[in-house]
Formats: sequence, C-alpha cells, structure tokens
Amino acid sequence: MSRRPVIAVVGAGRDIEPAVSHARELGRLIAEKGWVMISGGRDIGVMKAANEGAKEVGGSLRVGILPTSDATPSDAVDVVIVTDTGQARNNIIVLSADVVIACGVDGAGTASEVGLALKNGKPVILVNASEEANRFFKRIDDANVLLAESPGDAIKMADSLIDPK
Amino acid sequence: MSRRPVIAVVGAGRDIEPAVSHARELGRLIAEKGWVMISGGRDIGVMKAANEGAKEVGGSLRVGILPTSDATPSDAVDVVIVTDTGQARNNIIVLSADVVIACGVDGAGTASEVGLALKNGKPVILVNASEEANRFFKRIDDANVLLAESPGDAIKMADSLIDPK
Amino acid sequence: MSRRPVIAVVGAGRDIEPAVSHARELGRLIAEKGWVMISGGRDIGVMKAANEGAKEVGGSLRVGILPTSDATPSDAVDVVIVTDTGQARNNIIVLSADVVIACGVDGAGTASEVGLALKNGKPVILVNASEEANRFFKRIDDANVLLAESPGDAIKMADSLIDPK
Amino acid sequence: MSRRPVIAVVGAGRDIEPAVSHARELGRLIAEKGWVMISGGRDIGVMKAANEGAKEVGGSLRVGILPTSDATPSDAVDVVIVTDTGQARNNIIVLSADVVIACGVDGAGTASEVGLALKNGKPVILVNASEEANRFFKRIDDANVLLAESPGDAIKMADSLIDPK
Repeated sequence: MSRRPVIAVVGAGRDIEPAVSHARELGRLIAEKGWVMISGGRDIGVMKAANEGAKEVGGSLRVGILPTSDATPSDAVDVVIVTDTGQARNNIIVLSADVVIACGVDGAGTASEVGLALKNGKPVILVNASEEANRFFKRIDDANVLLAESPGDAIKMADSLIDPK
Repeated sequence: MSRRPVIAVVGAGRDIEPAVSHARELGRLIAEKGWVMISGGRDIGVMKAANEGAKEVGGSLRVGILPTSDATPSDAVDVVIVTDTGQARNNIIVLSADVVIACGVDGAGTASEVGLALKNGKPVILVNASEEANRFFKRIDDANVLLAESPGDAIKMADSLIDPK
Repeated sequence: MSRRPVIAVVGAGRDIEPAVSHARELGRLIAEKGWVMISGGRDIGVMKAANEGAKEVGGSLRVGILPTSDATPSDAVDVVIVTDTGQARNNIIVLSADVVIACGVDGAGTASEVGLALKNGKPVILVNASEEANRFFKRIDDANVLLAESPGDAIKMADSLIDPK
Repeated sequence: MSRRPVIAVVGAGRDIEPAVSHARELGRLIAEKGWVMISGGRDIGVMKAANEGAKEVGGSLRVGILPTSDATPSDAVDVVIVTDTGQARNNIIVLSADVVIACGVDGAGTASEVGLALKNGKPVILVNASEEANRFFKRIDDANVLLAESPGDAIKMADSLIDPK
C-alpha cells in the first residue's frame, strides 16, 4: 500500500497570532512532504490559513471536514466532507489522521480535539501552546503528547512518528 | 471556485452481479469526467469495484468514508475518512456528494443511503434497481429519483444535474 | 436485569392521516404495556402524536432523540437527547430500540429509519404502509419486516418479538 | 413546561479514588434533587458508580449514552441509548445536559467531554480535579468553568445554574 500519510491541523476558528501564521506554514510544510492535510475545513482562523498554506504547493491535497451543511468551507479546500455531526466532527478529523498537530490550544474546540485524539490513541503535537495546555495534556498522556516550538519542529516530529527509523 | 464535483457511489458490500460490474464502470466513468468519487470505502462489493474502476484513470481521486476504525479500506481508496459512526456514516457520504448513484438497491444499507440522500435534498440515480425499489423511491420523491438502465445513462444524468444547461 | 423494553415509533414529521392517529394510539398502547417509548422527539407529526398518546398513561416514559440543538421537542417528551447529528440521529433511534414501529412510510426520513433498523438487525413493524413500501422492504429483509394493519396488531407483534414464548 | 433538569456526570471509565466515591455521591444527590442523570452508561468507573448512587433513590431516572452497540451498560442504567458514534457520543452527553459535572479529569475522554461541553456553551463543574486541569480549563473559559471541592459543593453550584434566583 502506498497511501499518503494524513496529517490533521486543528486550532481555533479565529484569527489569533501566532497560531494563524503557524498554521499557514504548517500547511505549506505538510504539502511539501507530500502528505494529505485534513482540517475542520471552515473559512476562518487556523483552518483557513492551513489550507491556504498547503494550496501554495503544487500537487497538495486538502480535505476539509465540515461540522454542518451550512458551514462555509475555505476556497483552499479541495474536497469537502459534510458531516452534519456538529462538534462531533472533531472525532472524525482526528480518527482520520496519522498525526494531529494543534496550532494553539486556546479554545474549547481545540481542547476537545486534543482530548479525542488522545482517547483514540493518536499522537498529538502541540505547537506553541500555553504553559497550561502543555502541562495539562502532558499529565494526561505523556507518551502521546509532543511539544513543538515552531512549525518546523512539528514537521520533524511528525516525520519521525510516520516513518520511525 | 473551481472545486471538483463529488459523486457518491453506494451499493451493497457483497459481490452481486451486475451491481459490481456496474460499479466498476461507474468508477471509471466518474474518474474520466474529472469528478471526485466518494464511497463507503470498504474492501468489498460495490465499494471496492467502484474504487478500482476509478483508479484505472490517471489523476482520479477516490475518498472512502469508513464506518468504524477497524473496517478495512480498499487499496484503491486514496484518502480514508474514519468516522466511527457506524451506519450513520451513510449520512456523511450522501451529504458530501452533489449526486448519489445507487448501484443496485438490494440491501438495507443502500436503502438507508437512498432515504438519507432524499431527506437531505440530494438527487439520486438508481442504476438497474429492482422494480420494487424503483416504485418505492419514485413514490417517495418523484422529482429527485432518476432511473438509469446502465452506468453510461447514469453518468449522462449526473452530468445534467451537475451542469444544467 | 429488569430493564424495560424500548420501542421506537418512527414516521413523518407532518400531520398526515391515518399515520398521526395511529401514532397516538401506538403511544398509548406502548405506555400501557410499560415499555419505554423512543422517537425523533420533535413537536410535529407522528413524533408529537406518539408522545402525546403515551403521556396519557401514568408512569409512561417518553425519550425524544433530537437531530439538532435548535429543534423543538414535543412538550410530551420526558427526556430530550440532543444529538446534533442531523438525520444520522435516525441511526441512534433504531439502535436504542428493541423493536421499531413505522407509522406510515411516506417520506424519505422514515425510509432511512427502516433501512437503518434492518441494517442493524432490528425487527421493523410497518403499520398501514403503502403497497410499494411493503413490497420493497419485504424484498430486502423478509424475516425482519412485519406488516401490521392497525396499531393493535403492531403491539401484538411487538409483544411476541420482545417476549417469545 | 415541567421537564426535569438533566445533569451529566462524566469521568474516567476506571476505578480511581476519590473519583468513584464522588461519583456515587453525586448520583445520589442528583437523584434526591429529582434531576435526571445522564452519563456514558458503561459498567465501569465513574459511570457505573454514578448510576448506582442514583439508583439508591426511589423515582430516580438514569439514562446511559453508550458509545457502541457492543458496550456493556451498567445494570443501574434505566434507559440505554446506543449511539454507535464511538467517542463522539461524548458530544451527545454534554448537549443533552443542562449542567455537566466532571468527576476527576484524569483522562483524555473526560478532557474531550469538558472541551465539547464548553464549545457548546454548557456550564461545567470540575469536582476535585487536578491543579493542571483547573488551570487549563479556567484559562479556556473562565465564566463557564466552576471548581468544586466536593460533590455537595457541586450540587449547590448546579442548583444555582439551573434555578438562578
């Protein structure tokens, strides 16, 4: 099987820095690796930035998992999956990913995504999260929570998780 | 926006003819049109055949929406979405499609997919379905149920639905 | 274990006769049996009537499974379960029931509920359904589809299914 | 409308003290208030203890929201809702509650429940949670996160939330 790895980028649906800039860079780096990028798909915040970053790279593939039929997807999403499961779509995002990268964990939605990922046994990389987020999630699942200081660090960690030497 | 149309192919997870041969041809024709193909993603029956048919065409994109984490996807699926919603994943398949093509409606799962598609206002094309299926679904929603005798007919109908002149 | 049997009543969210009168009688008869009644919970059509019928009986228990947070539950529902899964909540209704009774199968939503019930191996009783519905669902799963001409018949059938002698 | 308030008790599916003792007391106190108790329904840990506590009180009503068809419900659950949505059932638990009480937040599943509750605008009371959990969730949503030191405190807080004077 030669299916491409799938990386989820999760984060707030608001334009918060540096989360949005990090998301854009993450999207670009994921696409350069040839990985499929999956996200919440909406036309806002971290989701929008990550998809736009990935779209800059030729051959990239961006899948957006929308909560409801009436949510607006980012124009940078290639394939829109409409779930009509509300916030439960967060579970679908993390289940479909090999690695979950959280870009800022400043909101309740992202907290639920990290919790669901860990509950389902998925590794999670927190990029530039608050001290409170790092301590809480490391306490819950030290082995599966990795702390990255930059998008570049996160991609290196994801690479090791996908292709352990 | 230039997002590619998305066509769902649904049908039984069993190797029934002519449904499986039709599914293979549908997959190929959908891919030749440049449409994204979405399906239940499993390595069996109509799902497997449709993905394999589409994979024969260069540049095709096949997304498989799996019911559970432990379901086996067809090797011909490019992107696997793991929903862990059991049969409720049928709702996600139809919600994500512009047109739903049902290849045989001989089982309860496919019946639920057609029902969910119509409930969500999606057009459904029944390919070579039983007389009982045709009569039942036409009675329920005459306008949104189209009857096709072959995969080629179904693709012409889908084309008209996607790009009405 | 002495958990009470759970019976789902499904049907259109519209005021169609005789479905609504049948639903009211079904609700009453289910409650008189001491069974828990489960439904789609909305304040309309078959759902509303079934809950109102059951409420007439002291000690009855009516659980309503709502599709979305903003759907209005019937005042006759005791316990509201908010799923935010849209039409996929139909799968939760049938999975939670020992027997599913469909009161008229004139719409796409009810068709999906019958399909999902059968797919999940649940027995379904069709009350006064159209000839087209009866033929289609009997063809799909002859063993698990029972045809009743009245609410009273349906309750007798449900009784035999719950407590086979 | 005189529908009874619904309180969710969430927590780990493991026998950890003092979470399990607290859950048992919470169940009892919720039932004494006449509130409906909702939980993840399984026959283990906080879920089991809360249902058993509530069952000690005559007239109590315990609804269990199971993740999958093959999960075993606690015998102390009155009404079992089978969702087949895996961990996404956590969203249904919190959406159906007026107030969510988390009994220990030591695991990823409970973290997801608190995140989902806050994302959906539900108030959450953390009972005897770790310092890390308190700091993280207070940072995310100071207004909707309440910290209780005992089950009795939590019930007083829930009472104020349900019936603000």
